[in-house]
Amino acid sequence: MDLGPVLAHLEAGHDRVLAELIEFSAIPSVSTNPSHAADVRAAAQWVAAQLAAAGPLTVRTLPTPGASVVYAESLGAAGAPTVLIYGHYDVQPEDPIEQWVSPPFTPTLRDGRLYARGASDDKGPLLIPIKVVEAFFAVHGRLPINVKFMIEGEEEIGSRHLEAFIAQHRELLAADVVLSADGAMWRINEPSLTLGNRGLCSLELLIQGPAKDLHSGRHGGSVPNPLHAMARLIASLHEGSGRVAVHGFYDAVRELDPAERKEIAALPFDESAYLQEVGATAAFGEPGYTTLERQWTRPTLEVNGLWGGYQGPGGKTIVPSEAHAKITCRLVPDQDPDEIVRMVRQHLEANAPPGTRLTILPGGERSRSASIERDHTVLKAAEAALVDTYGTAPLFIRMGGTLPVAEIFHRLMGLDTVYFSFSTGDEDFHAPNEFFRVHRLHEGLAAWARLWERLGR
Amino acid sequence: MDLGPVLAHLEAGHDRVLAELIEFSAIPSVSTNPSHAADVRAAAQWVAAQLAAAGPLTVRTLPTPGASVVYAESLGAAGAPTVLIYGHYDVQPEDPIEQWVSPPFTPTLRDGRLYARGASDDKGPLLIPIKVVEAFFAVHGRLPINVKFMIEGEEEIGSRHLEAFIAQHRELLAADVVLSADGAMWRINEPSLTLGNRGLCSLELLIQGPAKDLHSGRHGGSVPNPLHAMARLIASLHEGSGRVAVHGFYDAVRELDPAERKEIAALPFDESAYLQEVGATAAFGEPGYTTLERQWTRPTLEVNGLWGGYQGPGGKTIVPSEAHAKITCRLVPDQDPDEIVRMVRQHLEANAPPGTRLTILPGGERSRSASIERDHTVLKAAEAALVDTYGTAPLFIRMGGTLPVAEIFHRLMGLDTVYFSFSTGDEDFHAPNEFFRVHRLHEGLAAWARLWERLGR
Repeated sequence: MDLGPVLAHLEAGHDRVLAELIEFSAIPSVSTNPSHAADVRAAAQWVAAQLAAAGPLTVRTLPTPGASVVYAESLGAAGAPTVLIYGHYDVQPEDPIEQWVSPPFTPTLRDGRLYARGASDDKGPLLIPIKVVEAFFAVHGRLPINVKFMIEGEEEIGSRHLEAFIAQHRELLAADVVLSADGAMWRINEPSLTLGNRGLCSLELLIQGPAKDLHSGRHGGSVPNPLHAMARLIASLHEGSGRVAVHGFYDAVRELDPAERKEIAALPFDESAYLQEVGATAAFGEPGYTTLERQWTRPTLEVNGLWGGYQGPGGKTIVPSEAHAKITCRLVPDQDPDEIVRMVRQHLEANAPPGTRLTILPGGERSRSASIERDHTVLKAAEAALVDTYGTAPLFIRMGGTLPVAEIFHRLMGLDTVYFSFSTGDEDFHAPNEFFRVHRLHEGLAAWARLWERLGR
Repeated sequence: MDLGPVLAHLEAGHDRVLAELIEFSAIPSVSTNPSHAADVRAAAQWVAAQLAAAGPLTVRTLPTPGASVVYAESLGAAGAPTVLIYGHYDVQPEDPIEQWVSPPFTPTLRDGRLYARGASDDKGPLLIPIKVVEAFFAVHGRLPINVKFMIEGEEEIGSRHLEAFIAQHRELLAADVVLSADGAMWRINEPSLTLGNRGLCSLELLIQGPAKDLHSGRHGGSVPNPLHAMARLIASLHEGSGRVAVHGFYDAVRELDPAERKEIAALPFDESAYLQEVGATAAFGEPGYTTLERQWTRPTLEVNGLWGGYQGPGGKTIVPSEAHAKITCRLVPDQDPDEIVRMVRQHLEANAPPGTRLTILPGGERSRSASIERDHTVLKAAEAALVDTYGTAPLFIRMGGTLPVAEIFHRLMGLDTVYFSFSTGDEDFHAPNEFFRVHRLHEGLAAWARLWERLGR
């Protein structure tokens, strides 16, 4: 199938696609916050409408106990492979909102970047394959391969209903490989492909002391202070070195072999430039590993939120009644999320300071780590598409983040996942001022068209 | 001066005084929150108007760099002593507001109690001497003693401008003794008088890690997490036993002599009833001391607020950029607040976890502990007034809380302070659902009248 006119069509449509992405990014589809439920639904409808407009696809909005999955298929390429395209239309929360330069849901172009919550994760990358469908149909009246879109709305809350959904729709979703529009390239200057990602599990803690906030003058020094207890408990989770102190936490971890360590060490990585980029004064983490090894191949335990007592202006002299913490662990092969939650829970219960009541609430996230073989044919086709687009061979890297779908697809359907996202790891997708580079949108459109054409040969 | 008609006049006015207290308590004069500045001013005006209406007093509203002091005097009792009456019209913040049964500034009567923020601390107790002035003038046309009222609006933020104010108005304030309407009796079933109170100092901490919130997947495990650092730092401030671990913290503390310990041990105190009252499962604090000794005679370090990262519903997988804490210490004789702040600061700086930036902000509170001699004549007169009112001898206790005025008056003017408050320590004055018992209002009116008549003999 002739690729030239498709690429020309895509290029001619750059401004229109950007305008559509601006419209999409204005929908505050924050899945973690129940008050945004209507916005999450609106984003699903937007995606379904775009797919329906892209060509003669069958489009369905399939319910889950949470947000719906938007499904679409075009299966007219007899003999060609079938790819299942994954993405998500939900976004991270916008807070701390006061740190945004322009409002998170008022998409704003500055210096060749589109600033908006979700523009990079995952609305921009997700729009790309939809627009590539549109271009192939417009130019050739058909696609070079068979496609199935599965676009979910709960990725930012751990894709909590996706496993049951996939199990239920195994036949509908049958394919040769998963192409993920979610995932992010490592850096802006080198295109990259991903060999694996970390898993995730989560817990939430509540420590209760006195039944109500007490006057710290009258009662201070004689009753347990939940903030002291929480600080002590949280501090107990790590050794001073940064190593996780939970018994058994590292037991199942597959140690890197020397070849893997050598490969990671050979990647171009300037640690001081990295630290400057994130604004940290020093690297810190489990001893005995490099920064990239820590990010890609070692499990972590991070406190994402911690709070209790008075936070307003001035002071309030209380012994507060409660302290809270939110914790997530990033997991590597072969850690089992349930087992890790059990171990962390056991540690917390064993170390709960006296005189307080500890409640451990189940977190919503439970996903295993996932990985793909280096010589997978679709990964090789993706590599070639990137060489065609960038004129340079991509780096092979790993991902510190978590995309539960890859592991779920592998376990339930035996499918491998190739990440083919055009967002970049520095685009602040879990922080204020998230942005998506407009040139990545253009590069992504060309690269996806090239990949499909190549897979259809 | 005949006391009977004064007591009868006060009794006949019970309902009217309660209505006035309801009006007073409806003013949200929260001094720690700048957005309530106008309400703080309104409360000062309310007090000034009440004093002007009570009799032929000279009333003045005297400025400070913060909230004004309401001053009033009546010096027509030749040969009688002059008492300086202290109270405050500002109140604690109302949060956590969702835990209030009735709104904090909608005073509500339930079961003989008036529920409102500030009703017990200090609006009810403060209204009492004003109404006693009114009663003496109404019945006898004059007071049995000379009085000076000094009612401030910054007690809940450490009376931060009061020291300079007293130094500046030494002559205006000259008196024989201070009678404080602030202070609270120990318990509801035994009237009590206070021999001393703890001092106070405060600090606020900021720990900064990465320049912005980072995705905990991509960056987790490789950069310092400020919440981990804060937990470790806060945990370092105490030994596991509960003893403060700051070097030198206890150096200046005057140890109790065996007679003092014996006296405290002899007080009726049911520890399990106390724990049940505050809803704590166990007592906890510095080893080697009883609960009352810990509350009254030992210094403390308490974290009043601790926060950072994501606190909303669901999860947010970030390494946050900041962590915050608010700390106060309660001090005993002879601890110097400046010296304690210096020691705590030194400890924090020495223990700051690597890779993070620690900023220690000065807290607004700096007050020494204070105490009065057991055989002070005015304390004895107060004891007699309580015997007349309750038919039982008061307990002599100490106060865990902090009333900076007593120490300031003693240091700047050589004056002792007798606490003669009719609030009770269990009235939740730094917690939701603060209340003031209506019968204490009645008892207070009678007791203050008796005390003044006795001092005027």
